[in-house]
This record gives sequence, C-alpha cells and structure tokens, in this order.
Amino acid sequence: MADCIFCQVSAAALPASVVYRDEHAMVILDLFPVHEGHALVIPHQHCPRVEDLPDALASHLMALGQATIRAQQAAGLGGDAQNLLVNNGPAANQHVPHVHLHVVPRRRGDTLGTIWNWSTRMLVPGAEARRRKRLDAVASRLGACFQAPQSNA
Amino acid sequence: MADCIFCQVSAAALPASVVYRDEHAMVILDLFPVHEGHALVIPHQHCPRVEDLPDALASHLMALGQATIRAQQAAGLGGDAQNLLVNNGPAANQHVPHVHLHVVPRRRGDTLGTIWNWSTRMLVPGAEARRRKRLDAVASRLGACFQAPQSNA
Repeated sequence: MADCIFCQVSAAALPASVVYRDEHAMVILDLFPVHEGHALVIPHQHCPRVEDLPDALASHLMALGQATIRAQQAAGLGGDAQNLLVNNGPAANQHVPHVHLHVVPRRRGDTLGTIWNWSTRMLVPGAEARRRKRLDAVASRLGACFQAPQSNA
Repeated sequence: MADCIFCQVSAAALPASVVYRDEHAMVILDLFPVHEGHALVIPHQHCPRVEDLPDALASHLMALGQATIRAQQAAGLGGDAQNLLVNNGPAANQHVPHVHLHVVPRRRGDTLGTIWNWSTRMLVPGAEARRRKRLDAVASRLGACFQAPQSNA
C-alpha cells in the first residue's frame, strides 16, 4: 500500500529504528514512545485489522511480542512488567491502519504517568532527527538482547 | 493453583459468565467491564506471564482473541473497534497473576470514558449477583455469535 506508513517502513522507503526483522514481520521503536523502549511488532503484509491476519502471522506476531518482552527485560528497559496492546480500528485509537502490536515497558508506580504519556505522546516537542538519534540508540541496545523466536509465520 | 482465581474459574469452582471454552482455554466476561461485552481470553494452564506461555498456547490465545472480536461485532457489542490488551506483571496493572487477554469493544468518541472506566471499574456499586445476571445475559448473546477458531493449542 503506497500510502501506508508501515508498508513504507517495511520497504525501507521511510526511516525507522529497527530492533529486529525477518521474512514476515519487524520490530521497530514507536516514534512517540510512552516509555523508553516502547516497541511495535508489525507484519510486513498490509492488513488493517487484527482479526483478518492469517493464523500463522497472528501467531508470529504473538511470538515476536514475547521475544520483545524478553529483550526489554534483558536490556533493563522498564521494570519487570509490560503492556501488550493492539488498538483495532480508528475508534480504538489505532492511528496507522496496518496491524501493530505495542509492547510498552512498565515500572511500579508509573500508572498515572503512563496514562498521561499515552494521551500526550504525539505532542512531543523537538525535531524528528533528534528523537531518531535517541531511538536508534535504544533500538541498538534492544536489538543486542533480541533472540529470534523459533516460530515461523 | 489452589489460590488462583482464574484456575478456580477454569475448574468451575468459582462462577463466571462463560462465552466459550475448549480443551486449552476459555473466554469469559470481565466481572468489572470497561464496556459492555468486555471479554477475557484465559488459558486453563496456570502461567503468570505471557512470555512464558508455550508457543501453541500463545497462538491459541491470539486466535481466540480474533474470534472474540468477530463475535463482539456480530453481537453488536461496541462499534467497529476493539482493544486487545495483556497486562503483564503487577506494575502493568495485572490484577490476577494468570495470563489473560482483555478484548474490549470500543466506539467512536469513547476515549475519555474508556480511560475513566479503566481507572474506576473496580469501584462499581452493586452486589455481584446483580452484575452476574447482566453479565450472563451478555455472555449468552456473545456465545451465540462465537465461532471456534480452527487453531489447536
């Protein structure tokens, strides 16, 4: 899909801070992180809604979510907790109509901050270039801890 | 696990409003719904953390999440949108240490109400018996629209 941001990232036509990629999907950092290390698991195949993903790809998404959690923990991003979240449809706050699984590191006592960050994260000041440098450093740290799952989509 | 609420529900030692169950997992309604039709996909196997689920069971959880979305839509619960959410660890607002996938129907314009309901849902007034009656009616409506996925855990 020529006008889909994640299809363009998948085709490397747009920049991203890539943690991992394989034949079927990629793990990148969210450009507007709720917390440091906030990652997105994204299938290469364009599919707006999660219930329309083929079985094998849905399974692979989950396996990559599990691997991302392990990598975040190994990299010391967040505490010993995470939210896995798919926003399915615009009314559910899905901003890019291409399935993506958020993996957000959490820490004890950060609930109010997490709500605040979800609500304001797209209002961040600063140029993308500056944010990108920071995100690339985190992606590198996370990538070094990432172990590919055995599952095949 | 004798002291785990979801293990007790799985063993039918505690009541629940059951939408679907198979050999490996069940779909029940959340006792404190964020929105009507708010469902939980729960493996029978006791496992506190999502990254520790065996591959086949993680895949099955996702397949049941997809099936739950389809059932909610067919039953007219929510609009054409949903949040799929796993809170992983107490710091991520996981209240029962047994993996469960929330499937929350969403409607256009309900974002503030959704945040409010997540924050206050366990403060609901009224006896469980009264809520249970309502939940059982919704579970029945949802169950009539539920199509078992082909995946096997």
